[in-house]
Amino acid sequence: MSETFDFQTVAHDGTARRGLLRLGGGLVETPAFMSVATYGAVRGVGFDDLPPLGAQIVLANTFHLHERPGEDIVAAAGGLRGFTGWKGPWLTDSGGFQVTSLADRVRLDESGVTFSSPVDGRRRELTPEKAIQIQEALGADIAMALDQVVPITPDGRSEIEAAMERSLRWAERCQQARTRPDQAVFGIVQGGADVDLRVRSARATGSLGFEGHAHGGLGLGEERAERRAMIAEVHGVLAAEPPRYLMGLGRPEDIVDAIAEGVDLFDCVVPTRHGRHGLVFTSEGPLNVKNARFKDDFGPLDPDCDCPACRQHHRAYIRHLFAVGERLGPRLTSLHNLRYTLRLMQRARQAISEGRFPALHREIMDLAR
Amino acid sequence: MSETFDFQTVAHDGTARRGLLRLGGGLVETPAFMSVATYGAVRGVGFDDLPPLGAQIVLANTFHLHERPGEDIVAAAGGLRGFTGWKGPWLTDSGGFQVTSLADRVRLDESGVTFSSPVDGRRRELTPEKAIQIQEALGADIAMALDQVVPITPDGRSEIEAAMERSLRWAERCQQARTRPDQAVFGIVQGGADVDLRVRSARATGSLGFEGHAHGGLGLGEERAERRAMIAEVHGVLAAEPPRYLMGLGRPEDIVDAIAEGVDLFDCVVPTRHGRHGLVFTSEGPLNVKNARFKDDFGPLDPDCDCPACRQHHRAYIRHLFAVGERLGPRLTSLHNLRYTLRLMQRARQAISEGRFPALHREIMDLAR
Repeated sequence: MSETFDFQTVAHDGTARRGLLRLGGGLVETPAFMSVATYGAVRGVGFDDLPPLGAQIVLANTFHLHERPGEDIVAAAGGLRGFTGWKGPWLTDSGGFQVTSLADRVRLDESGVTFSSPVDGRRRELTPEKAIQIQEALGADIAMALDQVVPITPDGRSEIEAAMERSLRWAERCQQARTRPDQAVFGIVQGGADVDLRVRSARATGSLGFEGHAHGGLGLGEERAERRAMIAEVHGVLAAEPPRYLMGLGRPEDIVDAIAEGVDLFDCVVPTRHGRHGLVFTSEGPLNVKNARFKDDFGPLDPDCDCPACRQHHRAYIRHLFAVGERLGPRLTSLHNLRYTLRLMQRARQAISEGRFPALHREIMDLAR
Repeated sequence: MSETFDFQTVAHDGTARRGLLRLGGGLVETPAFMSVATYGAVRGVGFDDLPPLGAQIVLANTFHLHERPGEDIVAAAGGLRGFTGWKGPWLTDSGGFQVTSLADRVRLDESGVTFSSPVDGRRRELTPEKAIQIQEALGADIAMALDQVVPITPDGRSEIEAAMERSLRWAERCQQARTRPDQAVFGIVQGGADVDLRVRSARATGSLGFEGHAHGGLGLGEERAERRAMIAEVHGVLAAEPPRYLMGLGRPEDIVDAIAEGVDLFDCVVPTRHGRHGLVFTSEGPLNVKNARFKDDFGPLDPDCDCPACRQHHRAYIRHLFAVGERLGPRLTSLHNLRYTLRLMQRARQAISEGRFPALHREIMDLAR
């Protein structure tokens, strides 16, 4: 168990909960959204931009950093905090999902994953032990166990079951491989869209002594209501004390749905990726600022937003930046979407404390319709 | 004459001079460097980034804004300040240089320039009157007279002379076309690398009643010493009171050379363009941060710099950002180069006040060797 890790819930509203996560890198109020810094940088955004947006913790991708610049360089700089300059809390994923979706010539067996590097073509291996070793070198406050993620397909139950069971054996090996007392590790619940498999996975993962638990392999095809029900069932068998993390989902409606079931942590590339395409979240629903109808719209992206884009600029200007290919455009929409998402987390925490989370939940679901 | 324009020199050191330029958009301490916002945005940099870097005034390109979004949109937003959110001083170029170098099927005669729009292919016309009309719609504090720029070639004297004389006739038409009492217009000295032509151009331009004068068509092939001598000769025939602007040159050595001769204003894309290619100015001379030797260099870009990149990050991280194509890389190097350039202006102003500009001049020339 990590010596520098602590999580306490401070308020409940139904099954939604507010908490305080203490990490070596600092405090994180939950529910919290982790901004994604794949290669150690949030795309187009500087770390000095993050605190004013309400960001508390950043996620980096182990597979990408292992490829470039390599964990040895990051470790020589003093880990992710020393390498990137973001001195606050970090979480790293295990690299498992990324390696199977991004690397070339992937071969997977009980020992782990072998693959050809997309950077230099060399053969590399990612095992549970290696995933922990790399993440210890990167030095995040929270590391993730290596799991095997398979796509959700109608007749893939046996494959999903086998991957879930292998993920459990890998999770045990990850626990065995740990050497850093200052790094927490979260186990990952798998089982595709099969609620029985997910509950079995949760029971077993919950018995392995991880500091926290994650829902893995979701957002890959299941219905939202189905997902919500599976999250609820899994929370029914996991101990309430450790924090719960829904991996890779970050649309406003996904977030509030999961908060309602007691999820504490989120990460997603959607705010910055949508931003780069001109898609922005607003208090009046989503819009695409590249649309020609905004060419002389001198109002802010969102009248109810306090981000740098909304405080300084109007839609006509931001649309113009996209039209002429100025990189300030995607930067402003990324800052806006991050602020929207991080402010949603602030509003959720407040609403939970004040017993009015269901109203916020309804408000966001109405916008998504 | 503009009613909101005033320029006073406050200190001299040889022919170098320090001054204060009062514009409708605010005060500008000179010598000053104008950051280039071609389409109304400094590439990759937000307007909230500029004041901490020491920026006081921004330049936009009339040709680009005329093409997209069109001066009608900018005017409807309240001019450049309302359109872009930069509430400080603005200068616009006339579009002449840009139209001849960027547009398709350019035809030039005494009335002006006709060309095919690179955006929609339509035939457009840029005359002296139209250049003023567009710039009045954009609403910068300082507009530029339309001139004809021709490349400096060894046997092109007659062409250069004809362009210089046409530029004078166009300058007169620009003066006639003005209707805004709150916008200054600068005349532009032409004449290629021929000192006699430039002196003739300066005498005539100086008699037309412009609020300021610019050196145009330089940095296009002449030697640095030759340029400096021509600037000195031209200053010899121009009245001392109006501000003097060297167009389009911004390497540190170009800047200090021109300040030594009494130039007050500069603009250049070099800080951001070099930045985007990983080339950074430092107190130890220029370097390319993409170089592999920086992969584990955990020192700042420049130990003597206070910019956001140097305060928060090291060379290894910035090199990594370039290696993986993260747009934070070019942003950080652009911020750094702008800060370097703007700080050079601050140092020059201080040095002029304290009578030690020649030492700063030598320091910068030694770095460029």
